[in-house]
Amino acid sequence: MTTPGSTTARPLASLGERGLITLIRTRFSAPSDVLVVGIGDDAAVARPERGALDVLTTDALVEGVHFDLAFCSLSDVGYKALAVNVSDVAAMGGTARLALLSLILPARLAVGDVEALLDGFAAMAGQSGVTLAGGNITTSPGPLVVDVSLVGAVRPRKVLTRGGGRAGDAVYVTGAVGAAAAGLEWLRAGHAAPPDAGMAACVARYRRPEPRHRLGALLGRTRAASACMDLSDGLADAVLQVAQASGTGARIDATRLPIPEAAREWLAGGHGDAVRAAVRGGDDYELLVAVPARRRRAFEAVVRQARGVPVTCIGELTAAPDVVLVRDGRAEPLPQGFAHF
Amino acid sequence: MTTPGSTTARPLASLGERGLITLIRTRFSAPSDVLVVGIGDDAAVARPERGALDVLTTDALVEGVHFDLAFCSLSDVGYKALAVNVSDVAAMGGTARLALLSLILPARLAVGDVEALLDGFAAMAGQSGVTLAGGNITTSPGPLVVDVSLVGAVRPRKVLTRGGGRAGDAVYVTGAVGAAAAGLEWLRAGHAAPPDAGMAACVARYRRPEPRHRLGALLGRTRAASACMDLSDGLADAVLQVAQASGTGARIDATRLPIPEAAREWLAGGHGDAVRAAVRGGDDYELLVAVPARRRRAFEAVVRQARGVPVTCIGELTAAPDVVLVRDGRAEPLPQGFAHF
Repeated sequence: MTTPGSTTARPLASLGERGLITLIRTRFSAPSDVLVVGIGDDAAVARPERGALDVLTTDALVEGVHFDLAFCSLSDVGYKALAVNVSDVAAMGGTARLALLSLILPARLAVGDVEALLDGFAAMAGQSGVTLAGGNITTSPGPLVVDVSLVGAVRPRKVLTRGGGRAGDAVYVTGAVGAAAAGLEWLRAGHAAPPDAGMAACVARYRRPEPRHRLGALLGRTRAASACMDLSDGLADAVLQVAQASGTGARIDATRLPIPEAAREWLAGGHGDAVRAAVRGGDDYELLVAVPARRRRAFEAVVRQARGVPVTCIGELTAAPDVVLVRDGRAEPLPQGFAHF
Repeated sequence: MTTPGSTTARPLASLGERGLITLIRTRFSAPSDVLVVGIGDDAAVARPERGALDVLTTDALVEGVHFDLAFCSLSDVGYKALAVNVSDVAAMGGTARLALLSLILPARLAVGDVEALLDGFAAMAGQSGVTLAGGNITTSPGPLVVDVSLVGAVRPRKVLTRGGGRAGDAVYVTGAVGAAAAGLEWLRAGHAAPPDAGMAACVARYRRPEPRHRLGALLGRTRAASACMDLSDGLADAVLQVAQASGTGARIDATRLPIPEAAREWLAGGHGDAVRAAVRGGDDYELLVAVPARRRRAFEAVVRQARGVPVTCIGELTAAPDVVLVRDGRAEPLPQGFAHF
């Protein structure tokens, strides 16, 4: 991942642990109003947000499981490792604040590789207002692992769980569905030619998902939604989980799904059924949002406030317990989501 | 690690992700006064301790780097993965509260292996008063990784950093030095015979370190210490770091070091110099504490309160910038600690 001969092609071992910590410290100068003790002691000490609850989440990216360095850069990996956690905090209606970065680094990496990873992480931290509080570095005898824990804040009684939906609530999804899955499939197919603009957007979405952190925080603050979940394991999984936690069924209209044209074409070519492939595909990191009829105007106001986030109504939660996809007037079971095991 | 034919010898894949989450949920029923939202949503939501600052730390155990399943059980790994984080929070004068458990699991593990790991983690959580708030599970194409993040609480102005020491402060260490290193070396040497009682204690210390969480929290609360650090990377490393952060030197008296007799004999046999091996040896998870003369009685009162924690004065911080080990009346440089890279 580095140019031979460049100073950053040096092996990690030449830097030592202290040198690595210095690399990190120079990139993350924390605002002093949040961190009382930053990187370099036994633990970090941070001021909590007054009157707020803590939101806690952790998510790891493992080489060979969640990413392949043939298809993305180390900068993408650093960016995405934080983005997927920001998405989880947003899905609770919270605001991301403090991250812990745990790096498990194979000795084959060069100094420049780790710098790229840190730069990607820093880019996402800047976009989402996250301060790096601390972390851990160790060697890996196997894959590269980037494990991030994130602490956010949410006001009491403004927590947005998966389980608050009611029958009749409209179901919305942000952004596009199936784009990341199509982008990954396109990369895996090993094309020599560069992608057209539509596929390039899918590939970009796979490499650098855009967590909906502003919209999530606004949904929490305004109580414009009854339930929310992110699409880390696919739209179908999110619909199933929200319906189950809310004690409802769900009815999703296939014709309304915001599947980009490039993704639709590609997924139809590879799998035969583009809609099923799109709703099963993971890695979109969009939000699934349930909105009661009486909160619809509040929701629309929030969407206007979160400028630039496209939102599509794709169906509703139902009293009937089934979770179905409606196509050509016929209801079929929604496919199961991505299984980690 | 499991009996063939037992129900827990089933491969992990047979359980599925949901089954795994159920395994975890049944072991960790959280007290409702801390967790507003527990395991099973996009993120956990917790009530912070009123008037306290957050203490944040993360530490990973990687198979082949930090442990070898030939020398410890999966239960030991689960226990230790939390213990090393509890030790970090204690070293800041804080109280551990909420953990996030990130499991990166090779497919070769059986259900019973994961159950053992969770049981070990739960045992440490019970001892240290930690609630499991959430976590993440994924497959590993390589080693088992157990990565824990821990959130604790500390009162403002009661934070115990590495950098508060002054020349003249006495330097204390809890428990024993070099025990874990001797225990690990003994295991690596592959003995057929069981260890004698002294070595058995060293092996136990290596497998299940005892973080000094009560003493750490008391040191913070009472401000009986000026600086503190845990011995994760060895006594020598801790002395060097505390001295550097405090802008002092240090003088450690070799004859006062609490090296257990069994460790001394074993380390002398293997390395020639038992004292140097003991001060360089990691994995003890004791606390190094600097105590100003005027706080000595307060410190002694705290030690009495933290019943059963042995404490030894091993030297002092000095105005002279060198960090030295005094043996037979002669000062020599303190060896460097364990290097991760």
